[in-house]
Amino acid sequence: MTTDAQDNLPSAIPSELAGKVVISVDAMGGDRGPATVVAGCAMSARKNPDIGFILHGRVEELEPLVAKRGLADRCVIRDAREVVTMDAKPSVVMRRGKDTSMWSAIDSVRDRQATVAVSCGNTGALMALSMVRLRKLPGVSRPAIACLWPSRSPHGYAVMLDVGADIRADEGDLLQYALMGASYARNGLDIARPRVGLLNVGTEEHKGRPELKAAHGLMAEAAAVSDYEFIGFVEGGDIPRGEVDVIVTDGFTGNVALKTAEGTASLIRDLLKEAFRHTILSRIAALLAFTSMRRLSKRTDPRRVNGGVFLGLNGTIVKSHGSADATGVSAAIKLAFQLAQAGFSDRLAARVASTSPLRQDMP
Amino acid sequence: MTTDAQDNLPSAIPSELAGKVVISVDAMGGDRGPATVVAGCAMSARKNPDIGFILHGRVEELEPLVAKRGLADRCVIRDAREVVTMDAKPSVVMRRGKDTSMWSAIDSVRDRQATVAVSCGNTGALMALSMVRLRKLPGVSRPAIACLWPSRSPHGYAVMLDVGADIRADEGDLLQYALMGASYARNGLDIARPRVGLLNVGTEEHKGRPELKAAHGLMAEAAAVSDYEFIGFVEGGDIPRGEVDVIVTDGFTGNVALKTAEGTASLIRDLLKEAFRHTILSRIAALLAFTSMRRLSKRTDPRRVNGGVFLGLNGTIVKSHGSADATGVSAAIKLAFQLAQAGFSDRLAARVASTSPLRQDMP
Repeated sequence: MTTDAQDNLPSAIPSELAGKVVISVDAMGGDRGPATVVAGCAMSARKNPDIGFILHGRVEELEPLVAKRGLADRCVIRDAREVVTMDAKPSVVMRRGKDTSMWSAIDSVRDRQATVAVSCGNTGALMALSMVRLRKLPGVSRPAIACLWPSRSPHGYAVMLDVGADIRADEGDLLQYALMGASYARNGLDIARPRVGLLNVGTEEHKGRPELKAAHGLMAEAAAVSDYEFIGFVEGGDIPRGEVDVIVTDGFTGNVALKTAEGTASLIRDLLKEAFRHTILSRIAALLAFTSMRRLSKRTDPRRVNGGVFLGLNGTIVKSHGSADATGVSAAIKLAFQLAQAGFSDRLAARVASTSPLRQDMP
Repeated sequence: MTTDAQDNLPSAIPSELAGKVVISVDAMGGDRGPATVVAGCAMSARKNPDIGFILHGRVEELEPLVAKRGLADRCVIRDAREVVTMDAKPSVVMRRGKDTSMWSAIDSVRDRQATVAVSCGNTGALMALSMVRLRKLPGVSRPAIACLWPSRSPHGYAVMLDVGADIRADEGDLLQYALMGASYARNGLDIARPRVGLLNVGTEEHKGRPELKAAHGLMAEAAAVSDYEFIGFVEGGDIPRGEVDVIVTDGFTGNVALKTAEGTASLIRDLLKEAFRHTILSRIAALLAFTSMRRLSKRTDPRRVNGGVFLGLNGTIVKSHGSADATGVSAAIKLAFQLAQAGFSDRLAARVASTSPLRQDMP
């Protein structure tokens, strides 16, 4: 793995969790409540002996769940009385959310008790709170949400950003997304020299909006210093094709593309189920194909690619789907663990610092 | 079917094709050459006794193909010596393309010998030539390309536009897209009162870019007069969900969404094939599931949803995929036939005229 910076482990790990890689978890967010979140933590804990948790939420609800899952020696509970609801307005949460489990989970990262936090809660509120509590990294003007995208690449996934932190991005933001996305691909997917592409409606250099043409120039210039390969413009169809590791776009386009792909996959899944139910022969076929189909659905299961990562802040936040079940929560925690273990937050900060301000003055 | 205007049949049908619904076909465009295009015409001709063709291209190549397919009495051939290549620059074709089959095919619509033309050629050149030869409809500032999208709706498809005619669209353009898309859904999909949605990154009214908020207001106001149901903002995941018939967006976002969906479907198709090849049991399953899988692939086969339609010009152009085989060409021609038969070009023109200029002065 390429070294982005020296590992700076969090400085204030609770003594109960000494020696562990500590993940801060908002235990109350999400549609399914704390039992599902704690179950997800337990799944991850079984697989990774090095992981430890700071759980945030109502202590009287969390204590029995932690005891039931045998997590008592891997967990510290921080009592937080309030919960951010899925329909809460971000502006209201920013003003009055001080006692929520989400606020508390972010503050454990702010206080360097953990370097990564996980929440299944309201995305808008989580982004807004993360911005005010963690602050943007110096040199970053718009943080981004990065997601993993199933692809034909040998690593199995591509990174796409921004998928919805902001609806705008100018050429400087897009360059920052390239740097942050490349760092994420190095630390999250273990790709030494990620191939970075800029999403457009054609691959010819003269195509697209003015900010895309400007970003094309900036990203090409920064590639050598920032240790990624710039492959130029890519189109929507190239995202899963395996020839690009990091797809850079504004948060409007990225969000539409992500949700369109999820909708398409879900339509095909349903049509496939219908096709298999249609005749007796096809029902028998479905039985015979069971393990093959399971392998396929494992590959494309959104629960296993669970976790949008907020990049560009002083600390890393993993946003799990609100409807995630224990498997989904566990996937988000696994991602958080991997990023925390790699010292990702500090590596990313160092990377962004080393390449700011924008390199208009480069030779 | 709702009446958009009186049917104005083309005024200058060649006498050999009297009584037919005439489609103008660029026989030389496309990756597979004229034999494939003529084969596609023959497939359509077998299914629709009312269809007639004006074929444009090199007469010495087309005549034997037409004879071989038994199409001589359903066809008029217009000799055109040149072919627009797939990598030709639109600006060059506009200046020097007078002798191409594409130019000639569009001019048959311009001369009202046909109301709809079909080409498998270069999209950029086809759009540029269509703009200069047919001119924009009065009141339309940006023409759009509309595509059909497999969906769970009872009609099986939704219409999305713009998917790539222009990379920009302001609120007035988006309103025009709503009117044109609704007219297309009425005439192409037989939906009396289409449900129209505006693509955004969330469904709350305060979300999204300023032009989207403005377009939301305009589209809501125009709904009653223009005989569609406005369902407000929709997200990427809603496109195939079956609760919207017409999805309105700018050509940049629409193009990315379309290609992302195609890429996703293609990835899943490949993974599915791999899954079925994996074990002996799954190979047997694949055999048993054959008809079911065929039913599924028929439903999602891009060849059967072949045809981006250029809207907003004096006449209608159907753009078939460049790589279309005979089945794909036949699908594009079927769509052209349906639109020509419905008197779509004139209905659309009347619809746009009746609702221009923008209704800022509405009560």
